[in-house]
Amino acid sequence: MPVLYVIAASLGGTALDALPAAAIGVVRGLRDFVAENPKSARAFLSALGMPVALRELNIGRLDEHTRAPELPALLAPLRQSRSLGLLSEAGCPGVADPGAPLVGLAHREGFRVAPLVGPSSIVLALMASGLEGQRFAFCGYLPRERSRRIQRIRELELRSRIERETEIFIETPYRNQALLAALCDACRPDTRLCIATDLTLPGETIALHGIAEWRRRPLELAGKLAVFLLQAA
Amino acid sequence: MPVLYVIAASLGGTALDALPAAAIGVVRGLRDFVAENPKSARAFLSALGMPVALRELNIGRLDEHTRAPELPALLAPLRQSRSLGLLSEAGCPGVADPGAPLVGLAHREGFRVAPLVGPSSIVLALMASGLEGQRFAFCGYLPRERSRRIQRIRELELRSRIERETEIFIETPYRNQALLAALCDACRPDTRLCIATDLTLPGETIALHGIAEWRRRPLELAGKLAVFLLQAA
Repeated sequence: MPVLYVIAASLGGTALDALPAAAIGVVRGLRDFVAENPKSARAFLSALGMPVALRELNIGRLDEHTRAPELPALLAPLRQSRSLGLLSEAGCPGVADPGAPLVGLAHREGFRVAPLVGPSSIVLALMASGLEGQRFAFCGYLPRERSRRIQRIRELELRSRIERETEIFIETPYRNQALLAALCDACRPDTRLCIATDLTLPGETIALHGIAEWRRRPLELAGKLAVFLLQAA
Repeated sequence: MPVLYVIAASLGGTALDALPAAAIGVVRGLRDFVAENPKSARAFLSALGMPVALRELNIGRLDEHTRAPELPALLAPLRQSRSLGLLSEAGCPGVADPGAPLVGLAHREGFRVAPLVGPSSIVLALMASGLEGQRFAFCGYLPRERSRRIQRIRELELRSRIERETEIFIETPYRNQALLAALCDACRPDTRLCIATDLTLPGETIALHGIAEWRRRPLELAGKLAVFLLQAA
């Protein structure tokens, strides 16, 4: 029976260091894929040691521009009894990344969906943060406009206090520094903030401080992939 | 420089199939661990192929009964310049599992903390659910008492609608069936519910339906490890 395998990609490091042997074995057996970026998917699959020439792989594209009417055609291999791999550009498909509507369609068409173990920057950051992991929320990107951003940060700080949960969010690398400044402005001094950058890469840093300490301690974030985790006191 | 490595354990399957080669290499180099259950940690480490006899490993215990004053002693190896591995019973330490306070203490004492890639049932369930993954919340366990449980389910359904996020929660295996019944009672017919059981194991199932469909479709959940994911329409 064909399966839609949901495959996490490396966070910028070596492909063979991103997935367990069992997952690599499953991926090597696939010939049909859907990927956010077919070109970088080919590089990832090549590094995983596919046993066939890359030109023999069929890689459909699913990105933020893909519209709902285009989804059924991407599942064509499943209807021909061939298993299919859904690949993200980095990390887990469908988690802060495109993919969920395609997985939903596979469920509606009655196909089996199976996730493979791999890296999630959100979970890696949370497990290394020291912050509350019994309850947490991933909130995606915050608003860009300054006053709405400050308001959203205060909403999240309040929600963290009421729900006793960690709030997790991300930003594009060139806006990270501005986000840290906004957090220092908007949050209470005793709110704890963890910033994890370049996870799984040689330059990985994970720092946890109260906002009062972050105000004194500048951190060079520009251009780095960062995850922000906030817990109100 | 000594490092506190945060290590995800397998979700009941083979240890060697849970971690990438790079993570296994790091773990094999460690001699000091802190684990929720030292006995099962020894079994996991043995399956990973530690290059020394298990009796040479030093494994401290950190579980739900561990009190804050006991934490500093668990970090003793770091103060002696020996890296330390923090292991959960299944899945990721500090994520719906003990560990966060120890990681927080390591940060306060200035030690480097590094997470290793491994399985998280929450993320595996989410990436295979087809539900919203741009925003999601993990809410832990719901209240046991029936009227408070129904009220909490309705709160989460409302929060899912307002925040446009997926709500994720878990239950002890013998109460799963009752939780599914409560969800069918409390939620709107068009709310979507995904139930993932026995993730990464041979009997893995992942099903996504609207509540109206779940009311017609009984599912045998008793005794299984399950993750519930809910998205309001």
